[in-house]
Amino acid sequence: MTIQKKHRKPLTVDDYVEGVLSGDRVMLARTITLIESSAKKHRDLAEEVLKRLMPHTGNSIRVGITGVPGAGKSTLIEAFGSMLCEDGHKVAVLAIDPSSSVTGGSILGDKTRMEKLARNPKAFVRPSPSGGTLGGVTRKTRETMLVCEAAGYDVILIETVGTGQNEVAVRSMVDFFLVIALTGAGDELQGMKKGVMELADAIFINKADGENKKRAMQARAEYNRVLYFLQSPTEGWKPKAYTCSALTGENIREIWEVIKEFEEVTKESGVFEKRRSEQMIEWFDWMIEDELKRRFFENESVKELLPKLRSDILHANISPTQAVKKIMEIYDQHR
Amino acid sequence: MTIQKKHRKPLTVDDYVEGVLSGDRVMLARTITLIESSAKKHRDLAEEVLKRLMPHTGNSIRVGITGVPGAGKSTLIEAFGSMLCEDGHKVAVLAIDPSSSVTGGSILGDKTRMEKLARNPKAFVRPSPSGGTLGGVTRKTRETMLVCEAAGYDVILIETVGTGQNEVAVRSMVDFFLVIALTGAGDELQGMKKGVMELADAIFINKADGENKKRAMQARAEYNRVLYFLQSPTEGWKPKAYTCSALTGENIREIWEVIKEFEEVTKESGVFEKRRSEQMIEWFDWMIEDELKRRFFENESVKELLPKLRSDILHANISPTQAVKKIMEIYDQHR
Repeated sequence: MTIQKKHRKPLTVDDYVEGVLSGDRVMLARTITLIESSAKKHRDLAEEVLKRLMPHTGNSIRVGITGVPGAGKSTLIEAFGSMLCEDGHKVAVLAIDPSSSVTGGSILGDKTRMEKLARNPKAFVRPSPSGGTLGGVTRKTRETMLVCEAAGYDVILIETVGTGQNEVAVRSMVDFFLVIALTGAGDELQGMKKGVMELADAIFINKADGENKKRAMQARAEYNRVLYFLQSPTEGWKPKAYTCSALTGENIREIWEVIKEFEEVTKESGVFEKRRSEQMIEWFDWMIEDELKRRFFENESVKELLPKLRSDILHANISPTQAVKKIMEIYDQHR
Repeated sequence: MTIQKKHRKPLTVDDYVEGVLSGDRVMLARTITLIESSAKKHRDLAEEVLKRLMPHTGNSIRVGITGVPGAGKSTLIEAFGSMLCEDGHKVAVLAIDPSSSVTGGSILGDKTRMEKLARNPKAFVRPSPSGGTLGGVTRKTRETMLVCEAAGYDVILIETVGTGQNEVAVRSMVDFFLVIALTGAGDELQGMKKGVMELADAIFINKADGENKKRAMQARAEYNRVLYFLQSPTEGWKPKAYTCSALTGENIREIWEVIKEFEEVTKESGVFEKRRSEQMIEWFDWMIEDELKRRFFENESVKELLPKLRSDILHANISPTQAVKKIMEIYDQHR
């Protein structure tokens, strides 16, 4: 690995752009690595590459997928993705891996998960490091998604492991959001992170096979009852619950049928395009906020004063309004 | 009114502080007016007054109240507040009025709403202008709440009219959050703004009287079913639905009993104090963010470039990441 790296020629913007546009998987992977890099020189290069790729992006359906632990997300994505490849689609799976921010790398290697799908020449499976921040998830995963689209992938599946916050970030970058749930009693619904059900365009109850099938039907009725009381995340679309089995393959095709119907309905009404535009502008606004906060909170004088001010607020020695005034004065003097 | 104003002597910090601490209602009202003022000289004076009052704040139970339109919030608050006054409490009602940001004043005058309660010497009713921004709601209403506490009010009721966003702001400044709902069929639950039910520590179904009583019991069962699937906003507390009638007075006392039980449970577990500390620090952090954004978005060069960048993003001429870099450079050059 080290030897290989040493012998790599530095690639030009043209190399990256042409490689991605020609659908070269190795070049796609290297471009994503470039995007994920935090090094300044890589960032500049990545921005140039991305700028050139931008006009080739957008031609896909973007699907976010989450689920409670043990719901069998990976198995289901493998079955679903393989089916789509057989149908002639090119499928990119980006798995957001919250652990990667700790280890610096990713514990969910391509080798260990979705092995079969990863070997499929029409699929591309890639763990997407979260970079330790929500902004990190958003930026890197979004840019990776755009690069995959430029490489001709027409179905993008973004999987999250279900930390609650990540779901909101993923919802903000996809067209359709799928929640994978488990069969079982009402209590299991509570295993779902707060607010996640409200993000769903559809809930699929996995493992609806064998003895579990009857319970899955009951769970579906319960989910439908709860969904009835929640506002849909997508204007003009009423989310419903379904059952499926990644093991037997039953109803896996229905996932795609629901997504296609969703695409048709929302493209017809204009909601599809409207959401995409709003998502881009939101992303831009978020990054501005992130940058403003980063600059402020990394300022040495701010960092020094902040703990004292917080303590003073908690001891009622200063009002939060006064504290803001004080720290802004310090920030203005020392930047 | 104009003549009176002309003859008013300018008050000193001592005048305000002593007036509030002595429980003088006129001085309390004038202090709140000072806090609501946007004029620079008033802000400085208000900050001094607030600083002096800070050590006398915190000795109350803070209750947020919202509900669907037509749920009879005002009538219920009047009945509830009057009962508390009879019990020996001093009750302050702050009504957040979203219309006030448009008219500059408030359309919900003390005279027209909660007349009876407003005349009660142990109650203080005050519309709280939202100031047009969420930050405005937060700052002014929070500071008004603190001043009322310093004036000896031990129950603070903060009413919102139910715009969705305001509820989140109010939830972030109260101990207990009460949702007033209506009797009726399942469809009526959907009239509730998205996400509001998730904020509730209790739901009281009002107008449970006469022929409506049976339907109210049904609605209660339905609300309880939905609450069962939602995560509680307060650690160690399970929100439930109840029925009541502001008209007959039935179960109005139960509202207070639920709040007292909540206070006992959360003080025992430490959740009460923990939330208050977190709320203060959150408020501080939010105000910092608000200020950073205000400075950025009010910068003339930023205002000039922003529409073009947004349009370029939507036409895929630039990536959002690049656009952020560009606008930050402009901001740095022109401030």
